[in-house]
Amino acid sequence: MSNMNTQILITELPKDKLSESHFAAREVAIPKPSDGEVLVKTRYLSLDAANRAWMQGATYKAALESGEVMQGGTLSEVVESKHADFSTGDIVESSSGWQQYAVHKPNELGKIAVRGTLPNHLSVFGVSGLTAYFGLLKCGRPVEGETLVVSAAAGAAGNFVGQIGKIKGCRVVGIAGSDEKCAWLTGELGFDAAINYKTTNVAKGLAEHCPNGIDVYFDNVGGDILEAVLFQMNLNGRIACCGAVSQYDTGTPQPGPRGVPGLIVVKRLTLQGFIVSDYYAERQQATDEMAQWLSEGKLKVTEDIIEGIENAPNALIGLLNGENTGKRMIHVS
Amino acid sequence: MSNMNTQILITELPKDKLSESHFAAREVAIPKPSDGEVLVKTRYLSLDAANRAWMQGATYKAALESGEVMQGGTLSEVVESKHADFSTGDIVESSSGWQQYAVHKPNELGKIAVRGTLPNHLSVFGVSGLTAYFGLLKCGRPVEGETLVVSAAAGAAGNFVGQIGKIKGCRVVGIAGSDEKCAWLTGELGFDAAINYKTTNVAKGLAEHCPNGIDVYFDNVGGDILEAVLFQMNLNGRIACCGAVSQYDTGTPQPGPRGVPGLIVVKRLTLQGFIVSDYYAERQQATDEMAQWLSEGKLKVTEDIIEGIENAPNALIGLLNGENTGKRMIHVS
Repeated sequence: MSNMNTQILITELPKDKLSESHFAAREVAIPKPSDGEVLVKTRYLSLDAANRAWMQGATYKAALESGEVMQGGTLSEVVESKHADFSTGDIVESSSGWQQYAVHKPNELGKIAVRGTLPNHLSVFGVSGLTAYFGLLKCGRPVEGETLVVSAAAGAAGNFVGQIGKIKGCRVVGIAGSDEKCAWLTGELGFDAAINYKTTNVAKGLAEHCPNGIDVYFDNVGGDILEAVLFQMNLNGRIACCGAVSQYDTGTPQPGPRGVPGLIVVKRLTLQGFIVSDYYAERQQATDEMAQWLSEGKLKVTEDIIEGIENAPNALIGLLNGENTGKRMIHVS
Repeated sequence: MSNMNTQILITELPKDKLSESHFAAREVAIPKPSDGEVLVKTRYLSLDAANRAWMQGATYKAALESGEVMQGGTLSEVVESKHADFSTGDIVESSSGWQQYAVHKPNELGKIAVRGTLPNHLSVFGVSGLTAYFGLLKCGRPVEGETLVVSAAAGAAGNFVGQIGKIKGCRVVGIAGSDEKCAWLTGELGFDAAINYKTTNVAKGLAEHCPNGIDVYFDNVGGDILEAVLFQMNLNGRIACCGAVSQYDTGTPQPGPRGVPGLIVVKRLTLQGFIVSDYYAERQQATDEMAQWLSEGKLKVTEDIIEGIENAPNALIGLLNGENTGKRMIHVS
């Protein structure tokens, strides 16, 4: 290995849309682990819409600051260990950020028993798959025969949400941003229908494809699409609030959707926010069940892997513009 | 009894604020019950903010239409029965509307075993008390030591919400529309603090009186107050969505609060809409518990009783303007 560590910094927090000018690369020496610490090299870097939300202010973690290494979830390999619990070659989950090497304390690392491929641990067995699994089953609570709608349906979590919805016997309608994505959702993944929100009036599309109304909505986007869904929710419907992508890449977030709280009252809706780690006590069981579905061919995994950490800024910007189908990540080493 | 039935009609649906000009009184003959029907006379007529919401469109019931008798919940007495299950003198709950007499089928009537006074069955043992009880306990799920905020706190349900919150060991902060109401909440009902939203910045008031943040919010109003609360909710907070009074008496409802769904995700909030009848299977148990609290002096009942059905329009308009303290109703006969 070279003895340098390429890092990508966030040099300026975006006031409006994120661009490459907000990032800069630099090379620094590879850090040395002290006693009790572990040096890891990044194998895969996860790209997530939430990365952009972190630039807006405190979320479920402290806000990013300009000048620091861009943060991000990583799948890494131990290359030097000064802690008894870790050995060279171990594969770990970490939040090492956008860099090739990082030193961590043991409590910042989660050792992974690899099943499938390494990228699978950022997709189906990682945050994306588990977000879909827990958000849908714990917050959405779909019942066989109900209608499930999911936005950002071709995205990292959304595509699993729809597939799990089909496994649970729901009518599944996806909302996505291109005809190609919509064709993939219905053709490859078995969704019952898909709506291209860029070319179709979403309210009309929902009315057409959800003739019995909407019982469960898995919301990745907020904004106008949440509003359109709210007006077509059924009595006692559940909305799993996973994200608000429509509001992330902007300096001027919209007001909330009309119908809040009026429609929530009248339709006795439940809107429930969650983040995946709330449910990690049940992670093993979830992973086992998804592995079973994979082996039975009921669940398909789609990964969008981009080579080279230097391409991370562009890849994140592209993700925010809806470029990716399935789980986007960077293959770092 | 006279043989005429005074009715108050809704002659025109309001496009903006409700006024007396939207109503008209008329006298018609007292109707005759057919076989299997029951004639009741109205003793007390409930006035509720929801009455105004019904004029905006379909809610949990079909929208009101101009020219019909104004709808409303009533406590009535059977005066002539052609059904074996009902006898003259029985006290029943009904939705007889704004009139002195009505004929009902048995399934439109709920026989009441009177405990306390008749008005108690529109306040503590009626919709107001049960709305507070079920909404708070089922949707708010307060835990001892948590902070509970309630809006329209001096209103029919709100004042019970705060009192039950105190019984459950919460810090209780009310939001109301006058200094007199605020003084009543803290002085008479034992609230820990109260905020006059007409003279105080609600966000600042909440920050001052909820130093540990807000765990449970019982929302009667929606709008700006909901928005202010959302920003100060704690992780895993619960919002019981009971009503949106701020949006009822207007032709131009606001957009939803900022922070929906972003703050719901980040704070893992649950917003849950309900109407009281969803929980009527547990009504007896709820009434028993509230009767127990009454007898122990832990719960106080405040009723605002106005004489004469002819005063119903003005009394409802006043309620929408925040005139009442406690449960407002009309003593009809």
